[in-house]
Amino acid sequence: MSAFSLSPQIVEIIGGVAAFLTTVSWMPQAIKTITTRQTRDISLWAQVLLFTGILLWLIYGIYIISWPLIGANIVTLFLVGTILTMKLKHG
Amino acid sequence: MSAFSLSPQIVEIIGGVAAFLTTVSWMPQAIKTITTRQTRDISLWAQVLLFTGILLWLIYGIYIISWPLIGANIVTLFLVGTILTMKLKHG
Repeated sequence: MSAFSLSPQIVEIIGGVAAFLTTVSWMPQAIKTITTRQTRDISLWAQVLLFTGILLWLIYGIYIISWPLIGANIVTLFLVGTILTMKLKHG
Repeated sequence: MSAFSLSPQIVEIIGGVAAFLTTVSWMPQAIKTITTRQTRDISLWAQVLLFTGILLWLIYGIYIISWPLIGANIVTLFLVGTILTMKLKHG
């Protein structure tokens, strides 16, 4: 046990707060896009890369059994997926 | 061994590609902010929340010894940290 060791519960709480904060930071763009239905200023390829990256983080999180990674990436996959679907539909 | 089991190397590669893709998606905003030095349209509190979230992901990644999490969050912490510093300096 080093001076920096933490209990697994504390580590999961740190991960959970991290997941909450970075997920919340996606909300304003998602809400703006969903309510205005305006996607002209959003880059299609940035969203495709991001969607792919988040999907891979989710797969990675499932394999290493990290609940903060799984939770955060399910929510952001849904948010980015919604923006991407609207971009593909409305251009 | 389930049908979905992967070798640890493949899991780390999936995490590495995830880390690369989501990190790359931060680059355009960071480059734009650093080159234009214009931060008026950037929300201070969104950057503070994001910076805190990324810092906690990094701490979490160190404790669970996940190299993709550590790598991705060191780079994004630096990018978001630079944007945050410029926002605090230039307003």
